[in-house]
Amino acid sequence: MNFKIRAATKEDCKEIHRMIMELAIYEKMLDQVTISHEDLERDGFGQNPFFECLVAEVPEEHKSKEGRTAVGYALYAWAYSTWNGRSIDLEDLYVMQEFRGKGIGKGLLRKVAEEGKKKQCQRMQFTVLDWNKSAREFYAAKGAVDLTESEGRHVISFHGQNLDNLANEAAKD
Amino acid sequence: MNFKIRAATKEDCKEIHRMIMELAIYEKMLDQVTISHEDLERDGFGQNPFFECLVAEVPEEHKSKEGRTAVGYALYAWAYSTWNGRSIDLEDLYVMQEFRGKGIGKGLLRKVAEEGKKKQCQRMQFTVLDWNKSAREFYAAKGAVDLTESEGRHVISFHGQNLDNLANEAAKD
Repeated sequence: MNFKIRAATKEDCKEIHRMIMELAIYEKMLDQVTISHEDLERDGFGQNPFFECLVAEVPEEHKSKEGRTAVGYALYAWAYSTWNGRSIDLEDLYVMQEFRGKGIGKGLLRKVAEEGKKKQCQRMQFTVLDWNKSAREFYAAKGAVDLTESEGRHVISFHGQNLDNLANEAAKD
Repeated sequence: MNFKIRAATKEDCKEIHRMIMELAIYEKMLDQVTISHEDLERDGFGQNPFFECLVAEVPEEHKSKEGRTAVGYALYAWAYSTWNGRSIDLEDLYVMQEFRGKGIGKGLLRKVAEEGKKKQCQRMQFTVLDWNKSAREFYAAKGAVDLTESEGRHVISFHGQNLDNLANEAAKD
């Protein structure tokens, strides 16, 4: 199938938001999602954007059952490894169910890697869920290393109230 | 003990590099480190920096055995959660062995959280090694959630040649 991968624009944010929700449903974590498409517009397309985003698009004649032509996205941010320097933090890589197995995910992943190499990045890091076997196999087949298995790395997070509490303690000092 | 936490400057990069090496030795991964202090100067203190950094400093009279006054650092980058928006990617938090247990690590962590809240961040994410029990307990006591344990999140990475291969495949398409 014909598809195109291009940089997202502000006008894509409603479709990106729709796909973020689809991915959260797939990951069974929709209750944790609070973001709006306005947040994406403000945070990704103003000055000093917080993320970069690619969209995968199919031509009109191949649109989805619901009439969508934006069928996948990759959202990432520039990060830093203190061991090796510039790094890509890949937050999401998603392809709609009915468009899987056509090389779109691979196309998105390669394009993120290519954008990273343009900035001399030495690493691309992200997380996957244990039970998401197809995603884990997809990345492993392309040469990714599972650092949780090989080094015992755990993902740790402060969020919402826990992050606020930490920040408020600082303000009190 | 008296200590001060402040934003790092370009002039701190040799000391930050020295502490990055100390942390890598502690993590038994020194062989993986390729970064130089010049890399840090270029990537953190030019236009569009790839990271932010805080340094913990003690007064001259409390300097380390080797005469150091920079005794800890926190290095982080702005990232993005597609569920909740702006996020902090905490790459390293380090305090020199002889200065631990004095609140310096807590001070650094709080200050990163505070900087994040100034930018309306909703999440701070990072990784720890399984065997580093003291670090894991430190974060847990402050309200961090271990997403590898609670959700089965794995850390996945492409680096070096594996990342180059992906990017080169994209260029060939």
